[in-house]
Amino acid sequence: MDELTGILVDLFLLFAAARLAGEIFLRLRQPAIVGEVLAGVLIGPHALGLVGVPEGELIHLLGDKQAAEATLDIVFDVVAGLGVIILLFYVGLETRLDDLAQVWRRASAVGVLGILFPFAFGFAFIWATGHSNLESAFVATALVATSVGITARVLSEMGAIRSQEARIILGAAVLDDILSLLLLAVVKGFAGDDLDASEVGFTALAAIVFVAFAALVGTRVVRRYSIHFERLRLRNAPLLVAIGVMLGFSALAGVVGLAAIVGAFLAGMMLAEAEERYNLEQQALPLYELLVPFFFVITGARVEIDAFTDLEVLGIALAVTSLAILGKVLGGSMAMLGAGRSSALLVGVGMVPRGEVGLVAASIGAGIGAISSDIFSVVVFMSIATTLIAPPLLQMLLRGRYPQPRQEPTVLEGGGLPDL
Amino acid sequence: MDELTGILVDLFLLFAAARLAGEIFLRLRQPAIVGEVLAGVLIGPHALGLVGVPEGELIHLLGDKQAAEATLDIVFDVVAGLGVIILLFYVGLETRLDDLAQVWRRASAVGVLGILFPFAFGFAFIWATGHSNLESAFVATALVATSVGITARVLSEMGAIRSQEARIILGAAVLDDILSLLLLAVVKGFAGDDLDASEVGFTALAAIVFVAFAALVGTRVVRRYSIHFERLRLRNAPLLVAIGVMLGFSALAGVVGLAAIVGAFLAGMMLAEAEERYNLEQQALPLYELLVPFFFVITGARVEIDAFTDLEVLGIALAVTSLAILGKVLGGSMAMLGAGRSSALLVGVGMVPRGEVGLVAASIGAGIGAISSDIFSVVVFMSIATTLIAPPLLQMLLRGRYPQPRQEPTVLEGGGLPDL
Repeated sequence: MDELTGILVDLFLLFAAARLAGEIFLRLRQPAIVGEVLAGVLIGPHALGLVGVPEGELIHLLGDKQAAEATLDIVFDVVAGLGVIILLFYVGLETRLDDLAQVWRRASAVGVLGILFPFAFGFAFIWATGHSNLESAFVATALVATSVGITARVLSEMGAIRSQEARIILGAAVLDDILSLLLLAVVKGFAGDDLDASEVGFTALAAIVFVAFAALVGTRVVRRYSIHFERLRLRNAPLLVAIGVMLGFSALAGVVGLAAIVGAFLAGMMLAEAEERYNLEQQALPLYELLVPFFFVITGARVEIDAFTDLEVLGIALAVTSLAILGKVLGGSMAMLGAGRSSALLVGVGMVPRGEVGLVAASIGAGIGAISSDIFSVVVFMSIATTLIAPPLLQMLLRGRYPQPRQEPTVLEGGGLPDL
Repeated sequence: MDELTGILVDLFLLFAAARLAGEIFLRLRQPAIVGEVLAGVLIGPHALGLVGVPEGELIHLLGDKQAAEATLDIVFDVVAGLGVIILLFYVGLETRLDDLAQVWRRASAVGVLGILFPFAFGFAFIWATGHSNLESAFVATALVATSVGITARVLSEMGAIRSQEARIILGAAVLDDILSLLLLAVVKGFAGDDLDASEVGFTALAAIVFVAFAALVGTRVVRRYSIHFERLRLRNAPLLVAIGVMLGFSALAGVVGLAAIVGAFLAGMMLAEAEERYNLEQQALPLYELLVPFFFVITGARVEIDAFTDLEVLGIALAVTSLAILGKVLGGSMAMLGAGRSSALLVGVGMVPRGEVGLVAASIGAGIGAISSDIFSVVVFMSIATTLIAPPLLQMLLRGRYPQPRQEPTVLEGGGLPDL
């Protein structure tokens, strides 16, 4: 069996397991994504080992098992990365700049308080358990960033993606991403004893210019010039332009140091201005169907269950996870004072998932030797646990408010996010 | 810039360059794919080097530039592989088993003669230029397999994918793939002095069982049970089932030793039975738009231009390419005796592209040290050259027969292959 065949087998198993588990969870009236993540855990290399175990060919080629695993990992990274990029692109397509502008005060408050609380809680706890300032700072940084993909998908599944709360969460998440990027630069600077203020400043400036350009200039350019998309000779030119913009802005976000999904979201928001003309959401639907589940099932496959047999590590992990949840719920609710208790809770809980974003801080900390492997496992646990706990909580909070049934028509229809 | 960002930048550049070149070539009334392949050559690592050059991060991680290149290569392999899988899946969706059954005599003749001629020509020429029997046999084997993706796309671009000639070409290409697989097993056996007749027999049996199962059982299962697809709770369940079947059969084809695209074609042919009910072609269109151009632009990026500065190598490469073309045109035309000269030429030329299939034989030969690096370069040249020369020839042959204009409506419409 050659290398590409091995990867195809893995992709098929991941896709089939994700969809099967999604179907089962829908029948149990649970969010499909929880099923997808758990399916990934089950068939992943740390449990049944049906996927993600390198085949013979590449090991032979490189003479190095570690390199083979890295190679397989990067394929999964790319597939999962494309999945979450398309997810956030879709969320962007549902978001008009005007809608975000209406909620920017609330969103800023949620973003800022949702960073302060988890950072303070995380730092204090890790420091109190006898770890260094630096280690505490890395863990605290890992607690701040919101991974908005999970929340966005649950909100869509429940028909709430156009609600005001959803907009606040999206706005706050973009802000969170920028602020946590800066925080990470500062912490990294302290670690190396070479905190370079001009570098931090440059990073901040690049990120802000990028977001402002996409939001202000990009939307106007699309609004004014999107009518010309159809003058291209290529068939389905508007869709092609949309895909190109999505890939380009995702890459560009990475280049300026932001998460690729921020670029994807902004690309979607720009193209929302051409949505009425070209119905891009409906056109791009199969991309969503093919790629998005890979993000969730691969996230599950990454969970190293056996890291938590050490009870002390497990204890710290549970405590950090609780603080991570508490910090976002407190920060988010406080910022929503006066908006009603159920809205406040919804926004707070919506900010809880850390997903892959928290892992980046931990990886950097581990890469430069600033955090131990135990603490690394703790952060991984926290990222996964906050990701898994948010969907059922959100579903509980939303159930009374948006009572439409989950099952939607099989055929395509304009409007509404697909299979979310 | 982290690793994933580097890959996203590459994917964006590949996508944008492919689509831009496609647009330019369409305006020049040339096939879009030629533009896509040439765009890949231009921006690839062997010319401008805009893509495919490993970024720092991974080299750092693995401490090995070669490993980093292998990693990047496999990402491109997967993306290009998914592209050509979707292309052949689409071609399958346009093909009913009944249609293939009507042409099976012609297709078998084209398949068999289209293998005999190129093999004989290739073997004789390489042997006559002073190479060993084994080296001659590997080159000859590399000349036999048809890579039907290019031809299928040109036929579709020209509106001829449902013609009888197209069906003959498709049937012959599936047969070619099976026969060349067996031929390769035999040649490989001779190389190792351990020709295992039972292994060759087993490979043959597995391949034939797989194809027969998909064609005979699979089509019936889909015809009878596809009505139940819509009883699943997942939204767009028919499309999801189709994607799953496509990935599964592609992987399975690889497992039994066939090219993944044979599995993708068979999956499409099975689901063609449910096409009228679910309009899968239209639903899966964006997958096509996103992924198919990657196959062509990445094929271009793989061309090592500088390998042909040695005039002797270049001379052999040109001779082998000529024989590769002549062999298929002669074999194909002869099998089409009595069907009219233009049909015979069309089928013969349609079988010319070797694409990636010929490269597999060469890679195996090089891997076991049976062919020199010069001869390897010759085979690569032949694969690319036959791939590039087929589209304009086909376009010339088709122009009089299917005179509809190239520009098609921008919005989706049922029927007809997308952007082909």
